Amino acid sequence: MEKSFVSQIADIDGDFAQWYTDVVVKTKLVDYGPVKGTMVIRPYGYAIWENIQNEFNKRFQANGYENAYFPLLIPMSFMTKEAEHVEGFAPEVAVVTHAGGEKLAEPLCVRPTSETIIGTMYGKWIESWRDLPLRMNQWANVMRWEKTTRPFLRTSEFLWQEGHAVFASAEEAEEETLKMLDLYEEFAKTCLAMPVLTGKKTEKEKFAGAVATYGMEAMMHDGKSLQSGTSHYLGQNFSKAFDIKFTDKDGTQKFGYTMSFGVSTRLIGAIIMTHGDNRGLVLPPVVAPVQVVIVPIASKKEGVLENCRALEERLKKAGVRVKVDDSDNSPGWKFNEWEMKGVPLRIELGPRDIEAGKMTVSRRDGLEKSELPLANAENAVLSLLNEISENLYEKAKKRMEERIVNAETLEGLLDGVNGGNFVRAGWCGERACEDKVKEFAQATSRVAAKEHTACKCVACGKKAATTLYFARAY
Amino acid sequence: MEKSFVSQIADIDGDFAQWYTDVVVKTKLVDYGPVKGTMVIRPYGYAIWENIQNEFNKRFQANGYENAYFPLLIPMSFMTKEAEHVEGFAPEVAVVTHAGGEKLAEPLCVRPTSETIIGTMYGKWIESWRDLPLRMNQWANVMRWEKTTRPFLRTSEFLWQEGHAVFASAEEAEEETLKMLDLYEEFAKTCLAMPVLTGKKTEKEKFAGAVATYGMEAMMHDGKSLQSGTSHYLGQNFSKAFDIKFTDKDGTQKFGYTMSFGVSTRLIGAIIMTHGDNRGLVLPPVVAPVQVVIVPIASKKEGVLENCRALEERLKKAGVRVKVDDSDNSPGWKFNEWEMKGVPLRIELGPRDIEAGKMTVSRRDGLEKSELPLANAENAVLSLLNEISENLYEKAKKRMEERIVNAETLEGLLDGVNGGNFVRAGWCGERACEDKVKEFAQATSRVAAKEHTACKCVACGKKAATTLYFARAY
Repeated sequence: MEKSFVSQIADIDGDFAQWYTDVVVKTKLVDYGPVKGTMVIRPYGYAIWENIQNEFNKRFQANGYENAYFPLLIPMSFMTKEAEHVEGFAPEVAVVTHAGGEKLAEPLCVRPTSETIIGTMYGKWIESWRDLPLRMNQWANVMRWEKTTRPFLRTSEFLWQEGHAVFASAEEAEEETLKMLDLYEEFAKTCLAMPVLTGKKTEKEKFAGAVATYGMEAMMHDGKSLQSGTSHYLGQNFSKAFDIKFTDKDGTQKFGYTMSFGVSTRLIGAIIMTHGDNRGLVLPPVVAPVQVVIVPIASKKEGVLENCRALEERLKKAGVRVKVDDSDNSPGWKFNEWEMKGVPLRIELGPRDIEAGKMTVSRRDGLEKSELPLANAENAVLSLLNEISENLYEKAKKRMEERIVNAETLEGLLDGVNGGNFVRAGWCGERACEDKVKEFAQATSRVAAKEHTACKCVACGKKAATTLYFARAY
Repeated sequence: MEKSFVSQIADIDGDFAQWYTDVVVKTKLVDYGPVKGTMVIRPYGYAIWENIQNEFNKRFQANGYENAYFPLLIPMSFMTKEAEHVEGFAPEVAVVTHAGGEKLAEPLCVRPTSETIIGTMYGKWIESWRDLPLRMNQWANVMRWEKTTRPFLRTSEFLWQEGHAVFASAEEAEEETLKMLDLYEEFAKTCLAMPVLTGKKTEKEKFAGAVATYGMEAMMHDGKSLQSGTSHYLGQNFSKAFDIKFTDKDGTQKFGYTMSFGVSTRLIGAIIMTHGDNRGLVLPPVVAPVQVVIVPIASKKEGVLENCRALEERLKKAGVRVKVDDSDNSPGWKFNEWEMKGVPLRIELGPRDIEAGKMTVSRRDGLEKSELPLANAENAVLSLLNEISENLYEKAKKRMEERIVNAETLEGLLDGVNGGNFVRAGWCGERACEDKVKEFAQATSRVAAKEHTACKCVACGKKAATTLYFARAY
């Protein structure tokens, strides 16, 4: 029964890809589905997703979004109404050609994203300026057929939220696009303890059909970037394609301005690769399925289990997600298991602790064990969970900041990304120069820097129009 | 702006089908999707579904179920592993034949239900008796291609939950099947104020691949039955097909016993057709998106809107889903709108009420207006919501009980269902006799009665083996 856990997981710095696979599978977050590129989200992984959903729902609601559900299948003809959109997504769609024992008159796409079908409905529902702004959010499965897949990071089917809003003016829609990007950044910090870079994407990297895409990028343990959320200003591209018109106050008919934004189960991958270590997962407290595990010491001694249960009840009442591990395994085995599973806080409670009115507390973020009075356990635990969240954030932020370097040449950029850094560099604005960087350094532009400090384009040496972050990316 | 609402809705007794369509569309619960047979669940409808989900999640969790997510696409070869299962579902599946720009080597079904794919994973995960029982629940979209569709009642795509469990013994699996049926019945009563009949289905009506299916049936306004939830004992049919084996305590390998159960967005249709009236929806308080609407009277008078907001805040804190309607419409227009939308409780608050420290309260379930002190509004509202729930249940129960009749002949059965009744009648156990009832009276067997009281088969006159409820059904 007793096995060494650590030996089951590849070394995080030696083989990060294998470490990731070991961790996601062995902690039972996920398993591989029978169809290539699909994943099964197991209860421990799905509970993280549910916590992410709850946190987002509060925020979306506060911003005027209502949840709704639109159909999975989209007529192929809808996809082709917006020229750039179909070009971007057609190569990735899964297509239903037969149903109910018959060949369909028109093939149907399994939604890769829902602008086209939601746009169609919005076109039907919106009549006047009074109906605007219109804001809805959908939690759904989407499908994008991918050649190379990895659980959470890139799978043919994934779960996500997609927000879709229509406004009367370009200004409002652009403002909302940035507001939702800010919401994502705040969420990443507060709930995932994950620092991000946010900014505009280049034409090459933008969403198919958008006027402008803004992204949030997070630095993973290996220095590669993970696009963790995007917010798109769609202008009138989709409103013209899907006839989203309203009668304005002046009585004239106008096309609305639309925007959309989304995050997916990829965020679970982001958490794993931001905070994980050689002992396994390190889960940020806000989304951890189990925030505190109580391990009874000498559990057969009278009163130990009862005291553990009593503490569990108290913490539950205080809103903590807590669990007593009363299995037959040894305390040492339990410590390893719950560490591998990334539980933020472990409480040991044995006869001596109980007698002394204390509990022994260990933080998963690596700080020292401490003894705390049982009397005030609720407050102590809640404030420790907060501290852990802040500490994880600060650690990740420090790492990211230390690993942002500047480059003025392609060689410098290559050195930078080879060293596991994000590289800030100037860009003239030409697609050819972005392609050159890709070819030379296998790095892509992630987002534009907030401050434009570079003088020259890293690829051609001409005047830089923008300062971009380049990185290797998932 | 001001329109008569009632005139927009067909008469509930004159044309129930049209009444249903009018109500679901005009209250913005749902709209028709662009692909035939699909629906768009609009925010007001989706909020009901979210409340249903929350209530079920509490109950499933208390019964040891954990949520998970399994892939949408199932290889066709999985479907064919259980012979009855594929026979039942093959005619209804939608099939993905192309993806990523290529023809797939094997066609993939869009899941009509997930026994096959979940069974495959369970087969992989379960090793020993220590892994049992294994209980999971999935909230997902499923697809069954239907010829005749109606929003919520029968759509090609719908949302549902499906619970799947494995046990070491037949007894435990059978017990769980009935336990989940009881859970459904309790849920229907507590959350939907909906009385149901529960019992075993006949071979003809059972789930494809089950050993036995138990159903809950509810009587709609027109006397027809709506199957509102099912729980299936699957025996070893799926464990043998999907190799769900475990090493038992005695060291031998055994096949597990499985069961599954599900309810869908159909429950929203059930609510509508159980409680609705000529003024529109009547929503049971536990799942109503808005439980209380506050309508300001003479809202421009000083202090009125402020008092409405203050009351709203107080009720929110007490856990009530409440909304102040501060739109420009007249109070009369608002009354009609919120009645049509089925909000359980309306509070009117005007200058005179405020001065007198009172509020005027109207119940959507048709009982008299009353004046209640503002001082104790929270408790008054909470207890009224409870009363409404109980009253709706009692009304529906009385109707159902009054409309259950007995029949001993096919003519009697036909008269019964023609009169909008459920008909209790004896059945010999032969499929041919069930078919005869269908042909003669366009009625199907719903569930077996708990008490077997009939002597003779209603169709052949031979000894009755079971007493069944027959009804016309949705």
